Amino acid sequence: MTHRIAIIAGDGIGTEVMPEGIRALEATAKRFNIDLEFTHFEFGSCDYYLEHGKMLPDDWFEQLKGFDALFYGAVGWPDKVPDHISLWGSLLQFRRRFDQYINLRPCKLMPGIKSPLAGREPGDIDFYVVRENTEGEYSSVGGKMFEGTDREVVIQDTVMTRTGVDRVLKYAFELAQTRPRKKLTSATKSNGISITMPYWDERVVEMAKGYPEIAVDKFHIDILTANFVLHPDWFDVVVGSNLFGDILSDLGPACTGTIGIAPSANINPEGNFPSLFEPVHGSAPDIAGKGIANPIGQIWSGAMMLEHLGYKEAGDAIVTAIEEVLSEGDATVLTRDVGGEGTTASLGKAIADHI
Amino acid sequence: MTHRIAIIAGDGIGTEVMPEGIRALEATAKRFNIDLEFTHFEFGSCDYYLEHGKMLPDDWFEQLKGFDALFYGAVGWPDKVPDHISLWGSLLQFRRRFDQYINLRPCKLMPGIKSPLAGREPGDIDFYVVRENTEGEYSSVGGKMFEGTDREVVIQDTVMTRTGVDRVLKYAFELAQTRPRKKLTSATKSNGISITMPYWDERVVEMAKGYPEIAVDKFHIDILTANFVLHPDWFDVVVGSNLFGDILSDLGPACTGTIGIAPSANINPEGNFPSLFEPVHGSAPDIAGKGIANPIGQIWSGAMMLEHLGYKEAGDAIVTAIEEVLSEGDATVLTRDVGGEGTTASLGKAIADHI
Ligand SMILES: CC(C)[C@H](C(=O)O)[C@@H](O)C(=O)O
Ligand SMILES: CC(C)[C@H](C(=O)O)[C@@H](O)C(=O)O
Repeated sequence: MTHRIAIIAGDGIGTEVMPEGIRALEATAKRFNIDLEFTHFEFGSCDYYLEHGKMLPDDWFEQLKGFDALFYGAVGWPDKVPDHISLWGSLLQFRRRFDQYINLRPCKLMPGIKSPLAGREPGDIDFYVVRENTEGEYSSVGGKMFEGTDREVVIQDTVMTRTGVDRVLKYAFELAQTRPRKKLTSATKSNGISITMPYWDERVVEMAKGYPEIAVDKFHIDILTANFVLHPDWFDVVVGSNLFGDILSDLGPACTGTIGIAPSANINPEGNFPSLFEPVHGSAPDIAGKGIANPIGQIWSGAMMLEHLGYKEAGDAIVTAIEEVLSEGDATVLTRDVGGEGTTASLGKAIADHI
Repeated sequence: MTHRIAIIAGDGIGTEVMPEGIRALEATAKRFNIDLEFTHFEFGSCDYYLEHGKMLPDDWFEQLKGFDALFYGAVGWPDKVPDHISLWGSLLQFRRRFDQYINLRPCKLMPGIKSPLAGREPGDIDFYVVRENTEGEYSSVGGKMFEGTDREVVIQDTVMTRTGVDRVLKYAFELAQTRPRKKLTSATKSNGISITMPYWDERVVEMAKGYPEIAVDKFHIDILTANFVLHPDWFDVVVGSNLFGDILSDLGPACTGTIGIAPSANINPEGNFPSLFEPVHGSAPDIAGKGIANPIGQIWSGAMMLEHLGYKEAGDAIVTAIEEVLSEGDATVLTRDVGGEGTTASLGKAIADHI
């Protein structure tokens, strides 16, 4: 069976780490005898926008919907196109139109990586952030009144639906069930955000009734971010709204020292549309073009993609290869952000060799 | 001149730390010859709610508006009253009706306090979070449709006004101007929250024109929380919306190891209504009644109050006393959260003695 993968490298370091992501996938496909077919797309980048006046062609949905997965680099280059235009014109469209309502991000302290938190060792931090990925604070509903005057008012809605909230909670509860600690933490702010967030809390209570074996707790997002720093060992599966999940899934990897290497999966669990796999890091215009970007986020996202396609063992093999290369700590191989003097290619190649 | 201070201790440890806050203020008033007059109020607590069915009496505004400042403990006890009711019925009313549109929170690594961040020493972390405190995400505007059915939709508005945004930015720019580094960081999320946050960014650009000597940068809230952990030394004055400021002003103190001792000021800069001073920590039902809560947040908030009333030297004297007691590190004096075996009273008394 051939798995058709759409490749969108995007902007900046997205275009640099993508070849290493593919290199690792090809090595894994060979070893595990998996048939992957890659198709490259130019759209979904700011350069495409500058040429065409839009981030995507009109028929992007038709072009992409038949693929088995989308493998994505990073999008955004604020000096060329404002972020809210480039992101809403690409990544956020994919998430929404392909109903990738789960954004899944592991936060794991890896061997050889120094946590910025004092005294934390590999094994101490190992949790998942499950983020709602289609609604909530990212609504684009709203507008301005009295524009350009002193009376100017700007309004944007947060929109939560029962469907949207329940399905992400269900996914999170089921993920918690597969984990040894069986613990779920809900991110809320029902003491301040007095309509949507109490609703979120209610749905958590309701959903929890179906999962009596899961230990559930909740924290307001302010103290929750504090607890990520103070007690990262408390967490197992953390579920949050689109915005809260976004924040926690950058902060979590930061606490493991791996903001530049964390992976993510935008999942449509029903599989009626393709899921999308991308590193957590952005396009990083400041280091783009230098060949020094760390490709691990892209490669690890490839591992999540293989697991999603049904090849758990193959995905694990990639993660193991990453761990091995990080443990070896060869400075000629590792990129600067993890203490080496190597390049995107040297690190990518070392991982592919280990696979 | 007599300064009339309204005391509202609130719930849980609020009632335990308040006497120590007052003790420190009385010691300072004596030393600096300041005339403070305290008036205690029972309302604004969950027990008051259980008795009266509301958090505040109908004439609270009349009762409080003539005071020179409000000295506040902590409110909330979820087992008695849901948080969104207790908070919206008290603290959030004060902030809004008294137009305390600035929430100011110092994040400072203090001597004797261990940062959870590896290798950070006093002096490394010293910044202010300036939070918009009256509008934004805390709107209470919105509602539900198709309630109780599978089609349920819940909507809440974020509301930003030019008045509201500009005045908090102005305060932040002016604060940055008083600081040696003259640096201002704006918290945004304009790549995802596509209406209100781009507006916030626009106003920052506009306001910056009037302050050419200030170095301005901005980060999206996700990577900003990561940078608080990775590079806390980057920050000098950080300005954010109501929600983002809330998150950053818990996370910042957590990074300095001082979540339990951080102070805050809810300021009405025009002085047409009283400002409110309260510790960052909440009512902490889990440790309430044990006499072990750390009173420093309350005492330090008192220092901010004195500074606001025009007694900068007196405020500084309190902060110095706190630093001295922390540096001495006497375990019989310090509370457990900072490594001692003392009580709320032993620590409060030691600080008052130093003053
Ligand atoms: C208790 C809560 C409503 C409040 C807030 O979010 O404003 C608190 O977290 C704070 O920061 O003062
Ligand atoms: C680029 C931005 C719109 C995006 C988001 O907020 O969803 C990113 O931060 C992410 O987490 O994937």
